[in-house]
Amino acid sequence: MARLKLKIQIYAGPDIAFGPGKAALLEAIDRTGSISAAARALGMSYRRAWLLVDTCNRCFAAPLVETIPGGGASVTERGWAVLNSYRALERHADSLTTTADYRRISDSLPPD
Amino acid sequence: MARLKLKIQIYAGPDIAFGPGKAALLEAIDRTGSISAAARALGMSYRRAWLLVDTCNRCFAAPLVETIPGGGASVTERGWAVLNSYRALERHADSLTTTADYRRISDSLPPD
Repeated sequence: MARLKLKIQIYAGPDIAFGPGKAALLEAIDRTGSISAAARALGMSYRRAWLLVDTCNRCFAAPLVETIPGGGASVTERGWAVLNSYRALERHADSLTTTADYRRISDSLPPD
Repeated sequence: MARLKLKIQIYAGPDIAFGPGKAALLEAIDRTGSISAAARALGMSYRRAWLLVDTCNRCFAAPLVETIPGGGASVTERGWAVLNSYRALERHADSLTTTADYRRISDSLPPD
């Protein structure tokens, strides 16, 4: 059974401005209300989560995540716009499975 | 300056039947005429190159690479069909940069 997996990364110069890890992190920050709780939920170190947030906040013209005075963090309006467009881009990419080129590859794999 | 990077992997059950590494390896085998020379050209160990060839040969219904008695290796007709379809799939994927969703992300990055 063939399965297509696509990884979409948006580079800004040498930095990865957005990709699967940052998308998952923004969603976890929204669910948990803080960078540290999001990191725990994803089994990621706080340091790594903080660096991912810092990278996308630096890359984009406006921050995607803002820290809340007194603790916690939330996804900004810009953050939601980028996240939603990224998830939509993934759905567009899934449509590659309808192309003749994909079928030519998957038809070369034994059925299972 | 935003740049979209896409990694396309074709899974067959738990195995990666085809992806960027295997595509590059098939092209190098065609250029160099052997798995060992292809491995050297790509800065990859012979063991790793052999394992990549073995995985795609086992995943597909027919081998993508055949070893030549007396030494050397070549890409089979099936190998070329899969490789060409894979490269075409990458070109389809590049067209994601024309979507409104991609523009929404890249427009959020500062110009440079």
